[in-house]
Amino acid sequence: MPSQEPSDAGRPASRGSSPLAKRLLIGEPLPSDKLEGQLLPKHLALPIFASDPLSSVAYAPQELLMILMIGGFGFVAYGPWVALAVVVLLLVVVLSYRQLIKAYPSGGGDYEVARKNLGEKAGLIVAAALLVDYVMTVAVSVASGVDNIISALPFLDPYRVWLAVVAVVILAAVNLRGVRESSTAFAIPTYLFIGSIAVMLITALVRVLLGDAPIAESVDLELESESLAQAAFILLILRSFASGCAALTGVEAIANGVPAFRRPKIKNAQATLMIMGGIAITLFSGLVAVAIVTGVRYLDCTEQVYRDAAACTTDPQRSLIAQIASATFGDFTVPFFIVQGATAAVLLLAANTAFNGFPLLGSVLAADKYAPKSLSTRGDRLIFSNGVIALSITAIAILVAFQADLTTLIQLYIIGVFTSFTLGQTGMVRHWIRLLRRGADGRGAIIRSLSINLVGATMTLSVLIVVTITKFTHGAWIVFVVMPILWFLMLGVNRYYRDVDREIAVDADTTFGASGDHAVVLVGRMQKPTLKALDYAIAARHDSIEAVHVAIDDDAADRLDLEWASQNIKVPLRILESPYRDISAPLISYLKSRRATHGAEVITVYLPEYIVGHWWENLLHNHKARRMRHKLMLVHGVVVALVPWLLDSSDLLYGRRSRPLPGQDRRGEPVRPRPVKREQIRTAAPPKRKPRP
Amino acid sequence: MPSQEPSDAGRPASRGSSPLAKRLLIGEPLPSDKLEGQLLPKHLALPIFASDPLSSVAYAPQELLMILMIGGFGFVAYGPWVALAVVVLLLVVVLSYRQLIKAYPSGGGDYEVARKNLGEKAGLIVAAALLVDYVMTVAVSVASGVDNIISALPFLDPYRVWLAVVAVVILAAVNLRGVRESSTAFAIPTYLFIGSIAVMLITALVRVLLGDAPIAESVDLELESESLAQAAFILLILRSFASGCAALTGVEAIANGVPAFRRPKIKNAQATLMIMGGIAITLFSGLVAVAIVTGVRYLDCTEQVYRDAAACTTDPQRSLIAQIASATFGDFTVPFFIVQGATAAVLLLAANTAFNGFPLLGSVLAADKYAPKSLSTRGDRLIFSNGVIALSITAIAILVAFQADLTTLIQLYIIGVFTSFTLGQTGMVRHWIRLLRRGADGRGAIIRSLSINLVGATMTLSVLIVVTITKFTHGAWIVFVVMPILWFLMLGVNRYYRDVDREIAVDADTTFGASGDHAVVLVGRMQKPTLKALDYAIAARHDSIEAVHVAIDDDAADRLDLEWASQNIKVPLRILESPYRDISAPLISYLKSRRATHGAEVITVYLPEYIVGHWWENLLHNHKARRMRHKLMLVHGVVVALVPWLLDSSDLLYGRRSRPLPGQDRRGEPVRPRPVKREQIRTAAPPKRKPRP
Repeated sequence: MPSQEPSDAGRPASRGSSPLAKRLLIGEPLPSDKLEGQLLPKHLALPIFASDPLSSVAYAPQELLMILMIGGFGFVAYGPWVALAVVVLLLVVVLSYRQLIKAYPSGGGDYEVARKNLGEKAGLIVAAALLVDYVMTVAVSVASGVDNIISALPFLDPYRVWLAVVAVVILAAVNLRGVRESSTAFAIPTYLFIGSIAVMLITALVRVLLGDAPIAESVDLELESESLAQAAFILLILRSFASGCAALTGVEAIANGVPAFRRPKIKNAQATLMIMGGIAITLFSGLVAVAIVTGVRYLDCTEQVYRDAAACTTDPQRSLIAQIASATFGDFTVPFFIVQGATAAVLLLAANTAFNGFPLLGSVLAADKYAPKSLSTRGDRLIFSNGVIALSITAIAILVAFQADLTTLIQLYIIGVFTSFTLGQTGMVRHWIRLLRRGADGRGAIIRSLSINLVGATMTLSVLIVVTITKFTHGAWIVFVVMPILWFLMLGVNRYYRDVDREIAVDADTTFGASGDHAVVLVGRMQKPTLKALDYAIAARHDSIEAVHVAIDDDAADRLDLEWASQNIKVPLRILESPYRDISAPLISYLKSRRATHGAEVITVYLPEYIVGHWWENLLHNHKARRMRHKLMLVHGVVVALVPWLLDSSDLLYGRRSRPLPGQDRRGEPVRPRPVKREQIRTAAPPKRKPRP
Repeated sequence: MPSQEPSDAGRPASRGSSPLAKRLLIGEPLPSDKLEGQLLPKHLALPIFASDPLSSVAYAPQELLMILMIGGFGFVAYGPWVALAVVVLLLVVVLSYRQLIKAYPSGGGDYEVARKNLGEKAGLIVAAALLVDYVMTVAVSVASGVDNIISALPFLDPYRVWLAVVAVVILAAVNLRGVRESSTAFAIPTYLFIGSIAVMLITALVRVLLGDAPIAESVDLELESESLAQAAFILLILRSFASGCAALTGVEAIANGVPAFRRPKIKNAQATLMIMGGIAITLFSGLVAVAIVTGVRYLDCTEQVYRDAAACTTDPQRSLIAQIASATFGDFTVPFFIVQGATAAVLLLAANTAFNGFPLLGSVLAADKYAPKSLSTRGDRLIFSNGVIALSITAIAILVAFQADLTTLIQLYIIGVFTSFTLGQTGMVRHWIRLLRRGADGRGAIIRSLSINLVGATMTLSVLIVVTITKFTHGAWIVFVVMPILWFLMLGVNRYYRDVDREIAVDADTTFGASGDHAVVLVGRMQKPTLKALDYAIAARHDSIEAVHVAIDDDAADRLDLEWASQNIKVPLRILESPYRDISAPLISYLKSRRATHGAEVITVYLPEYIVGHWWENLLHNHKARRMRHKLMLVHGVVVALVPWLLDSSDLLYGRRSRPLPGQDRRGEPVRPRPVKREQIRTAAPPKRKPRP
């Protein structure tokens, strides 16, 4: 509805989403207890929001150690220190987001925080970073998932890229079909992953303590250690740290999902975040430790040194988790397959979260007028589908271009993550400073929060710089090309909407004063849709009315003329000659000439339009009607009145069920039941008959 | 325009195209001499229509001889006899089409003849055959063209498929852009081809007579002759003949293009056909003869026997024309390159003809209601573009699937050609018999014509049977799968339209009698488009009128309420609550409840709609308006009145030039100038004010 569009897109997201959320969550028209049933208890919120952050421990330890080993296997000794740095960073980021949940419980996340506190342009940087991130989440998670599947079933190695593409297609299909995320089916893989990795780590440690330390299959790999210059050494440690930071991806998920939690929302979300952080830190440290103890070797095959290594040319390297599982439980045993299965499943689940986040971000951007307004129709399956398809195609393109190679893909990944982290934290710092200046209550608490976010901002910015320096030439430059393009596009859309708003704003000079009222009913053949249009036009009691037929075929025109007379229709029929077999040109030129003689008259042109039940029927109908409508809309003083004719097949349009849209649980929105009762109507002024002049 | 649709699609093509053609070609409103300038003189009609049939001599001799050589190079001795059979057939077909031009000068071709004389189902077989044919014309001509390019520039061999795909893409781009076929630029390649091949053949023959016979590079290829059983021998001769029949493809082009000829049309078209036939026969016989004399060897690499031959595994085989040109003029000399260039050019030109024929056939089928009515809008660039894109994608898919291999593609080609030949000729036989029965004048001439077409039908049917038998297992079965599918689809479309026509036909029970007249103006924000809609609604003087706002946001609703009061708008504003952020549901439920209380009232809902100037602006506007319109159209008694609001950018819509559509020259249609003078208006009854009751 166009006249409504500016109104509902005009409010900024922050204000837009909170009254909506309030209305949805706190009150009418559904009874609260019913709504509460839609909200997530912690034990379900944890797996739903944590599949993304937790899944990243499936690849972060491997990438961290892999980079160290570029310098030689002796460098593994630095592993615990690098891992410790990652853990500290993870802890700081978790604590920072704990602040964010409290300050912005509406679920807007880093984008909202940056936009409100740092201004539009910073907000758009975050938005661009997040868009890139969603695509990379799909690509990296799927690549890692496929990696773990191949580690368990090595004969699938030749089909790596195909498997990745098929996985994305399946995710897209599932999402296009519609999924309810809150179902416990979604919780199982995450718990299974946490459980099986924990059991594996404990088993390995117990075996170490019992003096029966598991030994990785790749422990015998030999490689000459080069002696590195000090600069190269520091760079290597930094690169290792940068890759290990992949463990932080997805931490923001809980902060974005606060509205979906059961009350007390903030407390529950904060508790879930802390639990998630604890689990992530435990699993990450455990995996790094056990990998070092069991002597896992993992080569970075993109490096020149390894070009001729057997592990890079013939055998597929097995993932770090697979090597540990194999060493701990024995190769191809049941527990080994459980670990691999759970890891692959949780990674695909993490990819799935991007399919929810992408359209949600689109709707927020649309509400803020940085994306086409049509994206703000969150309940719109068509728009949602377009988002899913766009995301899938981009992810598939990237997976194919980089041959589903995890190590290459990771280079492109965390730039976006840390861009949004840094700007989000900086925004929080601004937020607390503002509160302090305003002299809000609880200065102590505010200063504590400020400190946490200040540390967070500093550290994430440092990591962003490190990541940029160490990864730029390894592929991250692509992100630095794409993000500005997205940024300019979003800004351009916003400026466009602003210009249009200015153009259509009502000002002092705005005067309208159409007078006169003429109706034209376009007649083709004497058929029911035409007669219905004629009937409606007569019912509307226009000042004058005429039927118009454009004569493509003289015989048909003569026949119509006779039928018109024989049916005794009171409305006069005017026949326009059409020398070029064209219907619109003669009609338009007639309308123009009529307006030229009758002044600023409004002419309503009645067009019948078929309503059909199958999508393919649209290929068979209404094409000319559409063209005609578009052309008539360009003529001054013309209103096009569409009179629907429902073909029998249109019965199919009723009785369709509404399916849940992915992301509804995540936003805390109930699946909308069809409203049955009559809407409450508030009348501004009593409707009254307009006196006819 | 929907009401017009049944009318102009209702006439059968035969009746539909001739009055149009008449009106277009003989008279008003453009002066005749101006129109005559658009029509083709013979020297331009020949190259335009003959590129397709003449280009086939570029591959037919090669395929004919190639098949013979499967039995051993000794079998080349049968070449002249097989070629003679092809020449006789070509002559018969040319004479048959000479009859068809006289009997059906409207340009409908075999489809029209078969449909009129043999009934709907035979007509649809021809239509399906022609659709397959157009795709194969593109595929075969491009493959052969690329073959000749590679023969001249052998280093391009690894890129064969890519070259073919690029050629199709270029053809598609040129056609999407719009081409004037009548320009002499299109005539040059055909004349150059005829000329250069003729010079080459004469040079070769003169050298033979002077005792300096040119010798082909492949003359030394050795192959053991197998002794064939008699059945195998006959099959080989038949297969060779079937492949040689590729020379006949495209002969029907002139018969389809009669309306585009200068007067006397029939005489000119017939003369052009005979000239084309003469040239085709000369070039075909000459090429076969010179190929045999110079000892060209060409292997069918799809045959098992040749699997290990060097010519099939390493070297690209050079086309027969390239081998002759190289032997006659010397390898890589200027005349050699001229021959190859002209051959490649005329083949691409032949492919181009399919890009014209495909949408034209679509429009004829649409007029007969066997294809979506939208295709009958011949002047519609959008529809035409869709046709071009569909044709290109199919041709590219086939070229890629068969690796642009001419020999494989030819197997699929001539099934369709001979299906339409046979049914067309059979239809002509029926036509003459009917004329005889009716006792028409000139029995002698009719009986002569009948005999020619009878011979034609018998021979083409025989060839069709031979082709089917010899090619079925070589890939032609695909055509026998696709054609029935197309046939059923077209029949299904026809049955659908028939059912709809029946559904909307006016019968004795048809009564309409809407009464009451209420207007609803949908208001979002107080903006100009809304005020314009309101103004128009007021001007239309409905019995009652109200503005309706759906309150997504309570604050915005309150603001609107105040503005409404302050602007002193007389129309009452009704505000509907929307608990689910949904605009349409509350409005629809309000409209339904209103109709429930007010009886069979017509409610006109006014919606503003933005008119924009750039395609991308549509991505930013009107989405909700479209959804709203679709939903409102399902409500009983509702008319949707679209009030256009022209954004500044919509100025761009004016001042666009019209580009010629490919196929316009071919159909003899002038490029339509924008009508400037007022159309002649014929009024059935004087328009008068309807008395208000």
